[in-house]
Amino acid sequence: MSQKNEFDLIRKYFAPLAEAEGAFGLQDDAALYSPTHGYDLVLTTDTIIEGVHYLPDTPPEKIAAKLFGVNVSDLTAKGATPKVCLLNFAPHQNVTEGWIAAFADQVGVALKTYNISLLGGDTVAAPDKAMFGLTLIGEVATGCMVQRAGAKSGEDVFVTGTIGHGYIGLEDAKAGRSSLCRDLFEHPQPPLAFALAAAPYISSAVDVSDGLAADLGHICKASGCGMALNISAIPFADEDPMYLMAQLNGGDDYQLAFTAASENYDALMQVAVDHGIQLVKIGHVVDGKELILLDSDGAALKQPFSDLSENGFSGFSHFGSKK
Amino acid sequence: MSQKNEFDLIRKYFAPLAEAEGAFGLQDDAALYSPTHGYDLVLTTDTIIEGVHYLPDTPPEKIAAKLFGVNVSDLTAKGATPKVCLLNFAPHQNVTEGWIAAFADQVGVALKTYNISLLGGDTVAAPDKAMFGLTLIGEVATGCMVQRAGAKSGEDVFVTGTIGHGYIGLEDAKAGRSSLCRDLFEHPQPPLAFALAAAPYISSAVDVSDGLAADLGHICKASGCGMALNISAIPFADEDPMYLMAQLNGGDDYQLAFTAASENYDALMQVAVDHGIQLVKIGHVVDGKELILLDSDGAALKQPFSDLSENGFSGFSHFGSKK
Repeated sequence: MSQKNEFDLIRKYFAPLAEAEGAFGLQDDAALYSPTHGYDLVLTTDTIIEGVHYLPDTPPEKIAAKLFGVNVSDLTAKGATPKVCLLNFAPHQNVTEGWIAAFADQVGVALKTYNISLLGGDTVAAPDKAMFGLTLIGEVATGCMVQRAGAKSGEDVFVTGTIGHGYIGLEDAKAGRSSLCRDLFEHPQPPLAFALAAAPYISSAVDVSDGLAADLGHICKASGCGMALNISAIPFADEDPMYLMAQLNGGDDYQLAFTAASENYDALMQVAVDHGIQLVKIGHVVDGKELILLDSDGAALKQPFSDLSENGFSGFSHFGSKK
Repeated sequence: MSQKNEFDLIRKYFAPLAEAEGAFGLQDDAALYSPTHGYDLVLTTDTIIEGVHYLPDTPPEKIAAKLFGVNVSDLTAKGATPKVCLLNFAPHQNVTEGWIAAFADQVGVALKTYNISLLGGDTVAAPDKAMFGLTLIGEVATGCMVQRAGAKSGEDVFVTGTIGHGYIGLEDAKAGRSSLCRDLFEHPQPPLAFALAAAPYISSAVDVSDGLAADLGHICKASGCGMALNISAIPFADEDPMYLMAQLNGGDDYQLAFTAASENYDALMQVAVDHGIQLVKIGHVVDGKELILLDSDGAALKQPFSDLSENGFSGFSHFGSKK
């Protein structure tokens, strides 16, 4: 495919998606955005690479869905409303027009779903592995960003949706099996609207991207606390005991895990009902630094984490860590 | 190199560079930034790939210098002050600690040089070609961003520095020759401080990244005008007539080209002197849509552009275009 053709394709498929005035029709090297007065910006960026973050034969619409899902998930955990994005588009140099059209189509769907303006980005032909990056910027009322630090001993620990569909879904995708887990793995559905409405009741939050155990560990570390989790309360995608630890330590669930004072329980459950979100209390915040798993009798299980990182929690890690 | 080692290296070399409170020590999935009231944000992002944007044996400090240079250049053209950035760091999976240390060291130099806060990013091991992305956000007083649209017939056309060192420098790098052009090609020095001071006198601007002819073409297209350039006035890095057209159409100069009303000539020259910047008037804005080259007698040269794009100007293009 010639350079000219590629340039035309970008203009044909991406420029119509960039409707905001500050995008300058994707013809400029920079974009303009007027932030809302009284709001802070929350910024996140994630890159996904062929063969590292998605299987090589993944269709373009699923790659685009994943790219937006993982970034929206980061803002979901902060209680921030997505506003604008920049797209780094590096498909393989032999990509077809149909591939680009399908990718762009899903970008359009994501922009509409989350009400995000595409402001700019860059395009380049990847000589080997395709690579896609998104920088997403959201807004939250000044001083109101939900943090990882903020959990206090005695508070409840919650999680939305199911845990482990990332792990199970990847296994299904590798085996070529269709499944709901695979759908969720390939097309993450972070509970954004729920998170925005629940934010006032939440003391700390994290999205489940590295694995529930590791991500709750991030809260513990930032908040200076421990947690006791009831393993029977965790809504695993697959209840087979053989796979519980794998699901606890797997990543790519893109659900919201958070802590809240117990007096907010009823309000949070009402917000969950209002947004059609499954919300489960899975444990409580304790003194100390450890994440303890309790069996159905309330007895502590043996430390379940085989690959302990320095803070005592393992998690999905490809190169190092996001960030 | 193991995953654990990589994670430690990122923490060791990049976290100390992220001093801003909103960076959360690079431990979080998102960053916080409070924009200045009364200012617009200007956003730009550029990805550079091994073998596409830099030669495979380029040392890490030069890759980092280029990454920051090209992005700062985009903000320079908008008269925007760089504020915060996100870094997408995807070195080759077999990278050494020394390589990462040298890259990070140059990132630290760039952050200090341009007074930019590193707020976040992501890291991943590239399975094949290394790839580095930067999203840079700057601020400009509301409504004061310098645009491409704004040039008016009769105005002067200026360029800073020299033109063609990008082209000559790439040739020197390929041949393994040391030269000033190669230094400028590998370590772009956009005239940021000059641009910020000159912005009030400028009617339109562009950075010279695609090649002077193509980039002035962007102004012409956006402003609905033409230009007449005096070829003998253009400060070519190499005066050999054989290479003039290549330098005019080459890219990677990262100088500032702009238009200004003639009554601002003296003020602009004073700003240039104050900032130690070479500033040259190379022509003027005319009616029409064409970019005309005039020889030293004022006669129009034959159309010099061999690879005409739709708007009549050629330029450096790898895949399609930035954006």
